[in-house]
Amino acid sequence: MTYNIAVLPGDGIGVEITEQAQRVLAALGLDLSMTTAPVGGAAYDQHGHPLPASTLELAKSSDAILFGAVGDWKYDKLERALRPEQAILGLRKALGLFANLRPAILYPQLANASSLKPEVVAGLDILIVRELTGDIYFGQPRGLRTAEDGAFKGERQGFDTMHYAESEVRRIAHVAFQAAAKRSGRLCSVDKANVLETSQFWRDIMVDVAKEYPDVALSHMYVDNAAMQLVRAPKEFDVVVTGNLFGDILSDEAAMLTGSIGMLPSASLNASNQGLYEPSHGSAPDIASQNIANPLATILSAAMLLRYSLNEPEQAARIEKAVQAVLEQGLRTADIHEPGTTKVSTSDMGDAVLKAL
Amino acid sequence: MTYNIAVLPGDGIGVEITEQAQRVLAALGLDLSMTTAPVGGAAYDQHGHPLPASTLELAKSSDAILFGAVGDWKYDKLERALRPEQAILGLRKALGLFANLRPAILYPQLANASSLKPEVVAGLDILIVRELTGDIYFGQPRGLRTAEDGAFKGERQGFDTMHYAESEVRRIAHVAFQAAAKRSGRLCSVDKANVLETSQFWRDIMVDVAKEYPDVALSHMYVDNAAMQLVRAPKEFDVVVTGNLFGDILSDEAAMLTGSIGMLPSASLNASNQGLYEPSHGSAPDIASQNIANPLATILSAAMLLRYSLNEPEQAARIEKAVQAVLEQGLRTADIHEPGTTKVSTSDMGDAVLKAL
Ligand SMILES: CC(C)[C@H](C(=O)O)[C@@H](O)C(=O)O
Ligand SMILES: CC(C)[C@H](C(=O)O)[C@@H](O)C(=O)O
Repeated sequence: MTYNIAVLPGDGIGVEITEQAQRVLAALGLDLSMTTAPVGGAAYDQHGHPLPASTLELAKSSDAILFGAVGDWKYDKLERALRPEQAILGLRKALGLFANLRPAILYPQLANASSLKPEVVAGLDILIVRELTGDIYFGQPRGLRTAEDGAFKGERQGFDTMHYAESEVRRIAHVAFQAAAKRSGRLCSVDKANVLETSQFWRDIMVDVAKEYPDVALSHMYVDNAAMQLVRAPKEFDVVVTGNLFGDILSDEAAMLTGSIGMLPSASLNASNQGLYEPSHGSAPDIASQNIANPLATILSAAMLLRYSLNEPEQAARIEKAVQAVLEQGLRTADIHEPGTTKVSTSDMGDAVLKAL
Repeated sequence: MTYNIAVLPGDGIGVEITEQAQRVLAALGLDLSMTTAPVGGAAYDQHGHPLPASTLELAKSSDAILFGAVGDWKYDKLERALRPEQAILGLRKALGLFANLRPAILYPQLANASSLKPEVVAGLDILIVRELTGDIYFGQPRGLRTAEDGAFKGERQGFDTMHYAESEVRRIAHVAFQAAAKRSGRLCSVDKANVLETSQFWRDIMVDVAKEYPDVALSHMYVDNAAMQLVRAPKEFDVVVTGNLFGDILSDEAAMLTGSIGMLPSASLNASNQGLYEPSHGSAPDIASQNIANPLATILSAAMLLRYSLNEPEQAARIEKAVQAVLEQGLRTADIHEPGTTKVSTSDMGDAVLKAL
């Protein structure tokens, strides 16, 4: 059986980092068919839209999507619907990619990269499970209107709607509880139930789903406190589950605790385990096409792709071990380079991973 | 002229820390009339409501409010409208306290307290200007309903409304630009304009108000990126302005960067400079009544009260210098104690500040 993989390199360093991940995937000896299509600013340039119909069709018909990164300053002046990041929102929505898995792992070899004290972050290994298709991201109504009552009646007002439906919360809860059951057995649900109705509803459903997972200990934390505790004592977290908006903020905060965001992959899954896999970092247009970007987050995203969408856990582990090996060898791209290690290029790093496979 | 100060100690350590701040205020030689009233859980116990009408009246008729902290596990089972934190939301709304000033300052004497590397945080001095009466905190409609369309039609759905009206954004923008003009001349506005209509509107107004402040350089940052940059390089920020929800999260994250949240005051002001002043930390019921809590955040909140509501900047500076002096003397409450410094009680710390005045 052939696995179909849609490769969407996108903008900036997206091109060179997905190239390395493709080389790694191709070297595994699996029957893979990889098809490339433009997305983001690159797609806007070619087709006038960041997510052209042809790209969307390719993504839909694939088993999994390997995604680079999108965005560049030069598209900043476009109306929002045409800006590169709309492609990623469109893909999430169209494919129903509701479960975003964002590991924040600090590799022991990179402990110095963090802005936090080594003892606070050494061995950090958090999994943030972010709901990705609901919340205030897609809630209707939204827009600009004339305020109809209250103190600001008659004024222009920007507005958005946050909401979560019952089954939306239940399905992400199951993903998170199952992940927690396989790890520490601890799950922390983050919300703002002291202020938001959506959060109180979210919390009630979490408590209900918890009954099906007697071996997982569920705790709750307010998002402001979570933002603090991630800084104070991040290792107290194991699996965190939260909504789309809070997950956006907290998963980036958690990623940055490691100081090596160039190492962090992510997966966005739908109900049939079709998934989009992308590095946690952005398109870094300032260093594009210089062959200096770190391809490891994308290579590790390819490993997640194998594990979650292709059900090839051994192949995933092979890649992850190879990445460990190149770190052990002291190879570092510029973003994680420090004295005593060897600075290598994007393609050198790809070569090294291939060799270590 | 007599200044009227409403003192609302609240719950947990709120009582003992406001007591020390009151002693400091009383020692300044000003004509102050301080009247105490219950708030939060303490008020619920006495009056069946966290913000009784008598407390609200006192607050309204005062020149400024010195607030301790509210909350205790034992009220967790109450319906939301009766929980302690509703008092603080109620006061903000009733008094129109739209401008929340939250400094995150790392005192050089406490550099070790941070979980971040000293070189990353030494000398940190950020001011977060958080809008405090709008956004999704108070937006209507909100609640629980049956979803009327979309993929989840017919299901229960929790929902909230985020919104900002034009003059709401303008007035907080002016507060922030004025603060930035007095400091570095740099203002960073944080939003999520790539996703939210409310944020795009917010950003457009910020750009418009910026025209009135040609000497302030305005920049924009997405909230997820801000959560990262606060961890990576917090000293790159000076004044940050943001909405109620993002401000809740980012101001707590920024506070925790210092590692000494027991030192951080806050002010919440309305259009007539009436204000509520409270420490950035919570009520810490676990250590209440043990005379070990750190009163300095509350004492420094009293200094902000003098500066912003009573227009007594010299008296404010006197208190701030006295706090510096006790830190110089090596006096530390338990939360910031480290080897080589002298551990003191809540009341000892109050005594020391009084002496240093
Ligand atoms: C680009 C943006 C719309 C997106 C989001 O907010 O989800 C990004 O920040 C992310 O986390 O993938
Ligand atoms: C207690 C809570 C409602 C409040 C808020 O969210 O504003 C608190 O977190 C704060 O920041 O003052």
